[in-house]
Amino acid sequence: DFRSVFLEQHPYDQASFFIKLDPEDRQTVYHFLSPEEMAAVFENIEDEDGLYQTFLSEMDPTFAAQMLAQMYADDAVDVLNELDKDQVASYLTIMDDEAAEEIRELLHYEEYTAGSIMTTEYISIHAHQTVHSAMQILKKEAPNAETIYYVFVVDEDEKVAGVISLRDLIISEPDTMISDIMNERVYSVSVAEDQEEVARKMKDYNFLALPVVDFQGHLLGIITVDDIVDVIDEEASDDYSKLAAVSDVDSTDRGPFSAAKKRLPWLIILLFLGMFTASLIGRFEATLEKVAILAVFIPLIAGMAGNTGTQALAVAVRRISLGDTEDQTLSKMIVREAGTGLITGAICGVVVTVVVFVWQGDLFLGALVGISILATLTVATISGAFIPLIMHKLKVDPAVASGPFITTINDIISILIYFGMATLFMQYLI
Amino acid sequence: DFRSVFLEQHPYDQASFFIKLDPEDRQTVYHFLSPEEMAAVFENIEDEDGLYQTFLSEMDPTFAAQMLAQMYADDAVDVLNELDKDQVASYLTIMDDEAAEEIRELLHYEEYTAGSIMTTEYISIHAHQTVHSAMQILKKEAPNAETIYYVFVVDEDEKVAGVISLRDLIISEPDTMISDIMNERVYSVSVAEDQEEVARKMKDYNFLALPVVDFQGHLLGIITVDDIVDVIDEEASDDYSKLAAVSDVDSTDRGPFSAAKKRLPWLIILLFLGMFTASLIGRFEATLEKVAILAVFIPLIAGMAGNTGTQALAVAVRRISLGDTEDQTLSKMIVREAGTGLITGAICGVVVTVVVFVWQGDLFLGALVGISILATLTVATISGAFIPLIMHKLKVDPAVASGPFITTINDIISILIYFGMATLFMQYLI
Ligand SMILES: [Mg+2]
Ligand SMILES: [Mg+2]
Ligand SMILES: [Mg+2]
Ligand SMILES: [Mg+2]
Ligand SMILES: [Mg+2]
Ligand SMILES: [Mg+2]
Ligand SMILES: [Mg+2]
Ligand SMILES: [Mg+2]
Ligand SMILES: [Mg+2]
Ligand SMILES: [Mg+2]
Ligand SMILES: [Mg+2]
Ligand SMILES: [Mg+2]
Ligand SMILES: [Mg+2]
Repeated sequence: DFRSVFLEQHPYDQASFFIKLDPEDRQTVYHFLSPEEMAAVFENIEDEDGLYQTFLSEMDPTFAAQMLAQMYADDAVDVLNELDKDQVASYLTIMDDEAAEEIRELLHYEEYTAGSIMTTEYISIHAHQTVHSAMQILKKEAPNAETIYYVFVVDEDEKVAGVISLRDLIISEPDTMISDIMNERVYSVSVAEDQEEVARKMKDYNFLALPVVDFQGHLLGIITVDDIVDVIDEEASDDYSKLAAVSDVDSTDRGPFSAAKKRLPWLIILLFLGMFTASLIGRFEATLEKVAILAVFIPLIAGMAGNTGTQALAVAVRRISLGDTEDQTLSKMIVREAGTGLITGAICGVVVTVVVFVWQGDLFLGALVGISILATLTVATISGAFIPLIMHKLKVDPAVASGPFITTINDIISILIYFGMATLFMQYLI
Repeated sequence: DFRSVFLEQHPYDQASFFIKLDPEDRQTVYHFLSPEEMAAVFENIEDEDGLYQTFLSEMDPTFAAQMLAQMYADDAVDVLNELDKDQVASYLTIMDDEAAEEIRELLHYEEYTAGSIMTTEYISIHAHQTVHSAMQILKKEAPNAETIYYVFVVDEDEKVAGVISLRDLIISEPDTMISDIMNERVYSVSVAEDQEEVARKMKDYNFLALPVVDFQGHLLGIITVDDIVDVIDEEASDDYSKLAAVSDVDSTDRGPFSAAKKRLPWLIILLFLGMFTASLIGRFEATLEKVAILAVFIPLIAGMAGNTGTQALAVAVRRISLGDTEDQTLSKMIVREAGTGLITGAICGVVVTVVVFVWQGDLFLGALVGISILATLTVATISGAFIPLIMHKLKVDPAVASGPFITTINDIISILIYFGMATLFMQYLI
């Protein structure tokens, strides 16, 4: 029958199947599944275009509340965060008190912190227990715990005192004391820690779970590696989106209007920056009228400035997001970028001078374009690295300094350098 | 003493400490640690600037070979892949035969495939065993297996027949038959599968390990989640680097020369594309001489084309890399991008027309720039989506269509549209 065929599938496949159904068929699913079975499906649905809202409103409110209570607390919180406050309150009222309390606590944590991705379904034991009694707890808690592969040892104040892996438990003699085999050097994260920091720790140390503690060291929850995989993916696509100046590169756009809505804000800002660039060139109209050939190299110079600026930006943003943020490292980075700009600028400048000279037969014009390239590449490389750094100092995510933004800034810089020099040395050009 | 203080640290911290030492102190480490202990350190070193090469050449060759044999096979292979063929051969000769054979097999797999990231230290059992006997195997193998949390069930031909988690094992009665509790629906990956595909599967299904099979279903190895975390991170930073046209955004550059070396190849290519753009504008020199004001809007139009192109490119590259690659989805994507281009183009075009009219008091000039914006934004958006798509069809990684590359292509398109129109309607401009 439907129920058994459906439940044989992996919950991820159940979810993929479920979200493709039409509303009547979804009613069948709600009818046939228990709140617990539906919880496993819901844990595997990602929120897109208000899916959570849609599905929950189709369910009987009691069924929905029971399902939310059965979900791992971190996933339930993800769902509730997409609903109105009133709705959240009403589900929490219907739900049994213990589950409601657990969820209410997790709802308080700021987005993108360790607290927002942790769950409370961990297993904790005490140091004075034996391996045998720890294994008994493990067997009992296994159906409800997010992971049983790491067991956390807490003292009488619920402070983390050690950690032991199931691997170590099963190779130990049953009457061994936990205190004798536990690892007292516990790596934990603070509840307010940035999720990217948590991800870096998990990646470096190859943990499957990390305990989350408050500032006094009390165990509050755990973060499991499957959720960290999602964090790494989200953060990467976030940086990628910003470099390209799109709000969210990953959302499946329903149509051109919703896509346009996401890109227009950036484009309008860039348009006005571009108008500013145009007005700058406007000031050199007299120069342009005398030497029309100057216009020919505008996109080349502005383009090269944009390209090097984007390169420097990308390197700087990654460097900062990888945590290399001590002042010394950063000032070294600026010096290195200045050097890089000079080297690439000098080489590109010489190439351009030669090409323009051969093409236009005008060495002075070639030199003017070449020197402009040298100067703009140097300045653009420095600004590409410096702008994200300043943003980082101002506690703004450096990734919002998108490629197009840096490109437009560098357009302005390059135009000023190029036309400034051209106006200064006008007599040699005509 | 040094040895016990060092070994108390987590292997990742041991590695971080080790790579900061100077050569003499590293000799002390080689002296005090066993090959097995050194293996744990080496598993946590990432190759940068030939670090593997440096460290191995400092070691006694027999010590080095023993250390490589003690490493998890996947990590040993990562190290050997950075050495010359001769060196690899000599280490494999010194090493014991079994370890050498294991490594030799793994060395054959292509980079970026499942085979290249799998390891052979998995635990397999048979369906006709009891839980008790399976647990005995587990306890025996635990010190050498990469993970004991998933146990794979194979038939007499070594084909994967099922999987069982340690969680299920410990909650089952000792005399239960494995065949009664194993999960026969095993998710596996083929040895030739792209590592990005493997990562997606691991992420979607929240596995801690995935079995790798040949085309007949024989178990060849496993891939663990810690290595998938690295894959996701690497692939993301690869896409990010390409969007910014830098070879490798993550490598810690020693100085400006090595940074310049990584960026120059891209810059030189873009420089010649830029020269081509310049030569295109050169053809309109007569137009420019008559109406110098035209030059004022070149960076605006070219810049906006670059911006929309980059947005469309980023969305398309991500869409393709997320696996939405059926023809229907892709042709829908192009239609949607065309619509998006028209909408954003129309809105930006109207804004520009008004602004230019107010600023220059010339409605015709305003309309010319506005219509150019409309046309270039539409074409640039389509090309931004279409170029990665074509590359994907040609089996080229669409991510190599970097932002600066698309920007330069769109410079050319926008110049042709703008000056083409200006030349055509010249009489209204003067
Ligand atoms: Mg719960
Ligand atoms: Mg959450
Ligand atoms: Mg790792
Ligand atoms: Mg979770
Ligand atoms: Mg999750
Ligand atoms: Mg970030
Ligand atoms: Mg080995
Ligand atoms: Mg490898
Ligand atoms: Mg790939
Ligand atoms: Mg997942
Ligand atoms: Mg590994
Ligand atoms: Mg690894
Ligand atoms: Mg890729």
